[in-house]
Amino acid sequence: MFITFEGIDGSGKSTQARRLADVLRAAGHDVVLTREPGGSAGAEEIRRLVLEGDPERWSAETEILLFTAARRDHLERVIEPALKAGKVVICDRFADSTRMYQGMSRGDLREVVDKLHDLMIRREPDLTFIIDMDPETGLSRAKGRNGHEERFEDFGADLQKRMREGFLALADEFPERCRVIDGNRAPDEIAADVASIAVRALS
Amino acid sequence: MFITFEGIDGSGKSTQARRLADVLRAAGHDVVLTREPGGSAGAEEIRRLVLEGDPERWSAETEILLFTAARRDHLERVIEPALKAGKVVICDRFADSTRMYQGMSRGDLREVVDKLHDLMIRREPDLTFIIDMDPETGLSRAKGRNGHEERFEDFGADLQKRMREGFLALADEFPERCRVIDGNRAPDEIAADVASIAVRALS
Repeated sequence: MFITFEGIDGSGKSTQARRLADVLRAAGHDVVLTREPGGSAGAEEIRRLVLEGDPERWSAETEILLFTAARRDHLERVIEPALKAGKVVICDRFADSTRMYQGMSRGDLREVVDKLHDLMIRREPDLTFIIDMDPETGLSRAKGRNGHEERFEDFGADLQKRMREGFLALADEFPERCRVIDGNRAPDEIAADVASIAVRALS
Repeated sequence: MFITFEGIDGSGKSTQARRLADVLRAAGHDVVLTREPGGSAGAEEIRRLVLEGDPERWSAETEILLFTAARRDHLERVIEPALKAGKVVICDRFADSTRMYQGMSRGDLREVVDKLHDLMIRREPDLTFIIDMDPETGLSRAKGRNGHEERFEDFGADLQKRMREGFLALADEFPERCRVIDGNRAPDEIAADVASIAVRALS
């Protein structure tokens, strides 16, 4: 079973991914917890290439190609082998993030993102948690972190708002695998919600 | 005008590209001489990522994505601006090398290479010189160089032979832009041949 977490920056995806991994491990599942961009040695190198340096150094198209290369490596080296071995894979961000962040960066790019996905990735998650939250709160949380990779967080409140709407639209586009989770609650409440959906899906 | 040089390793592409640049500059043309993989700052970084380290570190698919990302950057930052400014661009290797080296590495990959090209690159050269030569001679010449990037040269005589045939087949596939040049002659003779074809095409 392949489970992904998506949502705007600061929505608590990473925390919730980690908490779900703990819950499922405690229930006896063999869990691989990973993240994108990155997640394999090669993909982490590509991640550094994309996210470090001048934000203008790559065009949107080159960035999409680099993220797709990183995802292909991550898929081949980490995700597919784990799924084949019967493990549960939990991934903090996956193709939906590229659909949103790169696909929405310019009107015409969503189609390019989709075609590249169909050609080089194909794999979709079995279950995707979209952590929905107030964009302002998300932004201030993301800014409060001491990350070196501020690129996408730097675009501000407008982008966060558009992204939030984009993720909700994505949940409508892929209703069979997407579950929208209210992220404006206490982490414990969110975690309980996520765990109960995941456990049901796994049984 | 966009001119590329293609052919097996050790066929003398780089020398001939440089000599043609000299000839055209002497004739008053504004020439940009460049190469792939690489050719722009970002593409050179991607080149290093692909060519350094363990040859098994990237799958054929990831490698194709990385080369396409590098080409997209090179195209946007160097080739297209130069062409727009009315310059002649001479490039040592371009998309045909990916069609050959990555496309022929596994039977099913040529189609992936072509689809990626159609989606993300599209640009074809106006004129392509395919320097054809005896594969054994090419191999010993390539091995005589002190390169750090031995990856593709390490596969040996069989690959060189297949690649030579592949490049000849490519010339048949794109007859309107490809000129096959006999590379088994003295460099001066080859250069004269190349120059006369290029000058004719430019006038």
